Amino acid sequence: MEKVTAYINENKQRFLDELFGLIRIPSISSIADHKPDMQRAAEYWKETILKAGATKAEIIATPGNPVVYGEKIIDPSKPTVLVYAHYDVMPVDPIDLWKSPPFEPEIRDEKIFARGADDDKGQSFMHAKAFEAMVQTGQLPCNVKFMIEGEEEIGSPNLEQFCRDHKDMLKADIILVSDTGMIAQDIPSITVGLRGLAYLEVEVTGPNRDLHSGLFGGAVANPINVLSKMIASLTDEENRITIPGFYDKVIELSAEERSEMAKAPFELEEYKKAIDIKEVSGEEGYSTIERTGIRPTLDVCGIWGGYTGEGAKTVLPSKAYAKISMRLVPNQEHEEISELFARHFESIAPNSVKVKVTNLHGGQGYVSPTDTKDYKSASLAYEKTFGKMPIPTRSGGSIPIISTFERVLGTKSILMGFGLESDAIHSPNENYPLFNFYKGLETIPWFYKYFTEDQNA
Amino acid sequence: MEKVTAYINENKQRFLDELFGLIRIPSISSIADHKPDMQRAAEYWKETILKAGATKAEIIATPGNPVVYGEKIIDPSKPTVLVYAHYDVMPVDPIDLWKSPPFEPEIRDEKIFARGADDDKGQSFMHAKAFEAMVQTGQLPCNVKFMIEGEEEIGSPNLEQFCRDHKDMLKADIILVSDTGMIAQDIPSITVGLRGLAYLEVEVTGPNRDLHSGLFGGAVANPINVLSKMIASLTDEENRITIPGFYDKVIELSAEERSEMAKAPFELEEYKKAIDIKEVSGEEGYSTIERTGIRPTLDVCGIWGGYTGEGAKTVLPSKAYAKISMRLVPNQEHEEISELFARHFESIAPNSVKVKVTNLHGGQGYVSPTDTKDYKSASLAYEKTFGKMPIPTRSGGSIPIISTFERVLGTKSILMGFGLESDAIHSPNENYPLFNFYKGLETIPWFYKYFTEDQNA
Repeated sequence: MEKVTAYINENKQRFLDELFGLIRIPSISSIADHKPDMQRAAEYWKETILKAGATKAEIIATPGNPVVYGEKIIDPSKPTVLVYAHYDVMPVDPIDLWKSPPFEPEIRDEKIFARGADDDKGQSFMHAKAFEAMVQTGQLPCNVKFMIEGEEEIGSPNLEQFCRDHKDMLKADIILVSDTGMIAQDIPSITVGLRGLAYLEVEVTGPNRDLHSGLFGGAVANPINVLSKMIASLTDEENRITIPGFYDKVIELSAEERSEMAKAPFELEEYKKAIDIKEVSGEEGYSTIERTGIRPTLDVCGIWGGYTGEGAKTVLPSKAYAKISMRLVPNQEHEEISELFARHFESIAPNSVKVKVTNLHGGQGYVSPTDTKDYKSASLAYEKTFGKMPIPTRSGGSIPIISTFERVLGTKSILMGFGLESDAIHSPNENYPLFNFYKGLETIPWFYKYFTEDQNA
Repeated sequence: MEKVTAYINENKQRFLDELFGLIRIPSISSIADHKPDMQRAAEYWKETILKAGATKAEIIATPGNPVVYGEKIIDPSKPTVLVYAHYDVMPVDPIDLWKSPPFEPEIRDEKIFARGADDDKGQSFMHAKAFEAMVQTGQLPCNVKFMIEGEEEIGSPNLEQFCRDHKDMLKADIILVSDTGMIAQDIPSITVGLRGLAYLEVEVTGPNRDLHSGLFGGAVANPINVLSKMIASLTDEENRITIPGFYDKVIELSAEERSEMAKAPFELEEYKKAIDIKEVSGEEGYSTIERTGIRPTLDVCGIWGGYTGEGAKTVLPSKAYAKISMRLVPNQEHEEISELFARHFESIAPNSVKVKVTNLHGGQGYVSPTDTKDYKSASLAYEKTFGKMPIPTRSGGSIPIISTFERVLGTKSILMGFGLESDAIHSPNENYPLFNFYKGLETIPWFYKYFTEDQNA
């Protein structure tokens, strides 16, 4: 393994330069104008894998953005690791809050600043380069496959079918994913739980046109006032969600499990300071870690209606809109929750308005045990490079496709995420520390080694 | 008076063409980019008055947009009518809902479609042309002064000082204003009450930057959810405003006054059909006419925050905003209400967010009795041209400066408005029927005649 480490050290700057090349492609999957960038990003990945040493790499079309598939089969009797990642990124607005242009990566304070620096270009590129280092030094211990998709940030609408269509090709012993975070640079952790997601847009229509708020105000329902009341009513005074049936399938953790979770290091004062809030806020009876780890939530991701320009225009608007996301926990079914939401939202609308609910996307949550071979191999790898055992954690985030992999391919995933909470993924000034990039790169080959040894044992 | 009527009939088309010239100047007072248009509109008015026969007309600078002043003093011993109007207009968004460009006036279905067609370019131009007709036919019975301002739609921030600075110049027996509506083309009415206005913007800040709604959602207050709850709490289940002290100074009408008001023709089904709503909605215990006429209200005129673009971006935003207007009735003081609102809004903010309240504009309401000489003269004028007595009504709209005129100049106003509810003022496709334009033009000289005779009597 010294050879692998030496190779990485010798090529550090080139790896970074090549990552920057990928980052410079503005592959925003949710904005139709960026379609050509999706193709460019896929081609960049194909070349990257081939140059790294894959025996095969191809771009496979889907009804949406293409999937990049690559492989190196050294011995069919050896175990196979399937690396899953995504080349698409989130939109960049509000653009004026970025200190440097989102698609011109810049190093400041030993961090890469750019959209995708962490999520998921930075994290996924560690795998390409760890693979290259193992191949070029003759140290690859097992078979490797790559599946890099371009629709993760919009809910992977075509990947389930892709998996169904390519079951044999994607056969593997484990799916390896770096698209999550760890607690801190000196506190490695492995994500063993992810939340599911239901995301809907609501439209509330009052009068059929914008009205003069003086002539009509007070007599005609204002859709913004009404929408505010409807949103307000979705959570109660204890911050519990009021949609009937919402909690029916939520698995309550035992006191023991909760006390185990409570051992994870967490500094409330630092947490509040980092995002400049006076108080945290969430469901009564649960800690901050529990609120994001084991409890479902409802957040309005966007709201708009009426006059939002300069100055004081009075208007009683015709329409108001909101985008509402719910993070789900095992065993909540996202289709069922979306349906419950829609039915409830329609039912609470007063007769003075019309309501339209559109389901925009969704996915299942995921939990994995910590007594598996893959978890143990990952744990050993972190111990080797960080000098301490990682802590198993549950993330509040969602990678809906992980549960699909298990269902469709029958393959478990191991989430070796190297991001930090301060990476500001999905936000302006997304960043990824060079420490994490190189440390992740160094850790991954150890996973391959331990996982292969364990499988062969 | 036949000469006046004949002059109007002979010049109908030219009057319209000249009005179109004024409408084509996009004099939006709330948008700084339109500053040069304000000057152009003022110059257009100055020329209009001079050509009509004023002996003097000038553009007087203020710290904001200039005021156009003009006069024709035929005999200092005769009464003086001061015409007040405004040359500024509201913004035009949402622009995509306009069927024809807002500043390219177009006649469809016997109506002028354009921003300002009614409010207030169409209505004010009737005065310029009625004046011209009286002067050119030698029928002007009294002295006339014009005061045309450019900041009415942003709350006339400089007109009070202007009045203080030019008290003598503005001395008059009555202020004549056409900036309100009437019940229907065959039901003339005179507005004897106007609501006041308090308009504020609120900003709710949660975390100091947009956060990943998965990683933080459920544990950190979402400013949109919080703002929705705060707005929702501003009105109770009976649609009464919950701000402490808000109703303290509201004058409750007597049962007799309310039964008098209830006599005004009003077709609820037609009202609902015109704006395509299933049910009206407002303060319990009051009729639709009362809700807009004699009761104060709270409307959110605009709301925004988070992701409002295409697709399903998940985000826990840093900030959410709303523009909130309150229509006030006598004797509510707008400064006091703004202060009550701000204090209350800050007090209901949970500790998990920060709140900023900015006062954007305000003005007092107005009520005038119906037993005055000016009301009687106006009433006779309508009877002459419409063939029936006008009905006194209270408008839900606000012309804050009217109460200022009374306070500062000691002069009452008579509100001879010729607009219709269907004119869609402040909205896309604002329009003004040619019938109303010409009928108003015809009615105004009769007011001059009766008012002068009455004053001389």
